[in-house]
Amino acid sequence: MDERALIRSLVPVLGAAATADDCATIQHGGEWLVLSTDMLHETTDFPAGMTDREIGWMAAAVTISDIAAMGARPVALLLATGLDRPERLAGITAGALECCRFYGCDLAGGDTDAHTELTIVSTGLGTAVRPVRRSGARPGDLICVTGYLGGAQAALSGYDRFWERLIAPRPRVAAGLALNEAGATAMMDISDGLALTLHDMLAVNGCGFAVETARLPLPEGVPEGEGREFALYGGGDFELLFTVPPEHFPVTGVDATAIGLVVDEQDVTADGAPLPARGYMHLWKE
Amino acid sequence: MDERALIRSLVPVLGAAATADDCATIQHGGEWLVLSTDMLHETTDFPAGMTDREIGWMAAAVTISDIAAMGARPVALLLATGLDRPERLAGITAGALECCRFYGCDLAGGDTDAHTELTIVSTGLGTAVRPVRRSGARPGDLICVTGYLGGAQAALSGYDRFWERLIAPRPRVAAGLALNEAGATAMMDISDGLALTLHDMLAVNGCGFAVETARLPLPEGVPEGEGREFALYGGGDFELLFTVPPEHFPVTGVDATAIGLVVDEQDVTADGAPLPARGYMHLWKE
Repeated sequence: MDERALIRSLVPVLGAAATADDCATIQHGGEWLVLSTDMLHETTDFPAGMTDREIGWMAAAVTISDIAAMGARPVALLLATGLDRPERLAGITAGALECCRFYGCDLAGGDTDAHTELTIVSTGLGTAVRPVRRSGARPGDLICVTGYLGGAQAALSGYDRFWERLIAPRPRVAAGLALNEAGATAMMDISDGLALTLHDMLAVNGCGFAVETARLPLPEGVPEGEGREFALYGGGDFELLFTVPPEHFPVTGVDATAIGLVVDEQDVTADGAPLPARGYMHLWKE
Repeated sequence: MDERALIRSLVPVLGAAATADDCATIQHGGEWLVLSTDMLHETTDFPAGMTDREIGWMAAAVTISDIAAMGARPVALLLATGLDRPERLAGITAGALECCRFYGCDLAGGDTDAHTELTIVSTGLGTAVRPVRRSGARPGDLICVTGYLGGAQAALSGYDRFWERLIAPRPRVAAGLALNEAGATAMMDISDGLALTLHDMLAVNGCGFAVETARLPLPEGVPEGEGREFALYGGGDFELLFTVPPEHFPVTGVDATAIGLVVDEQDVTADGAPLPARGYMHLWKE
């Protein structure tokens, strides 16, 4: 069973709302609070060779990216750390703090525990007047992505100059806020590759997504075919995927590319052919 | 290094505020948000014989208890679950949901991951007009506890009729809210035994805590000496320890006992002798 199937199995218990967005949303004091939690552990989430400080940055960044994907402002982060060796805590905390400060977010607390394998759960709180959800895309909207795709996968595939891209993800907080302001209709981050992300969007929208691969912003210096494969199916980029009415694009100050169109037909296609829901996923042996 | 020493080591990095209370506190929209995260894992936190549903309840309860200890109202909970077997998620989620519903809290989302050992991190959000902190005790205040102490440790020591007390902790949410309203000056929950909890209070207050052991509310039917040992040093009770001016005690509707007095001298004593900071702690081998 993959992670998405497992989470879908909770819909009858929790309701669809609890599993439909990058963050849970709660109305409070005239605006919305958004909350997200991410569990990472050493063998599957942190590429070998990362320092504790880099691990701390990444743990904070993945959660801040979820907040960014709601068009929300990160406010506070908590870090629960299961430590194989207690001396790692200082480096991990320093890295998380650095990331939090970079995004104007308070590293407000946490918990520690002894663990056989380093395990970090970061939980973030953000605020938005109106969060941008995964649902909300409308036929005729442009499909767009920030930055470029496939860099993290390029690093994993041996293109060493993309190493920083892989280990030090830069959540698109400012872009998320600007896109919210500019009227983005749906948004999420692309942590597991474009194809899976489009299928996640498909699952909660009553329309479809038609992408033109020639428009994909690819990692520079990687052969085009390979770069396209990385962009579609590679994980770890943490760019934003969003839909927006054409008259509101481009958005001042946001580095983004239109890669396709929201269509009536409920399917994900690339160059007219169905795009498989394939990419980076947590898998359990069955 | 024990967990408290490890957390103290973060004070230079994060500042004392991030480690001083049961929850992080954030001002928002005219009131306070409180946030707490707790990491639990199977071998050290869940007594053998617990069902997945009970594990889910407990994971939610420990975090809701932290919110109760701030005199706050629990609003939302997120559950990050590292699963050794994916089929456990349904039971764990059902138990957490049951606990959340009991306390009027929304199980709002979460994350899942594969893990060699079952690991659950629950993160909770609560609200309070004014949170009650660990600091704030004043000489002359009564030291009080809700309910009774030592029941969970009694179960661990073979008194089977306390089993429910151990595996299904009941956070004192209503009591915490009432005590906040009534003017409690300091509060925290007693997850690791009374002695350690008093020392945690000592660390953030400019005064001391003098307890009379004859006043301790003990588990019924356990020999007195053993019961007192359980109450002082046993973990898992999740009652509230609080200080309150004598004129505001007792508080209507709150089952609580005065067990001593806040004093000028900065020390924790039991019957006039220093009470050691001993109890249930996570330990790393060094």
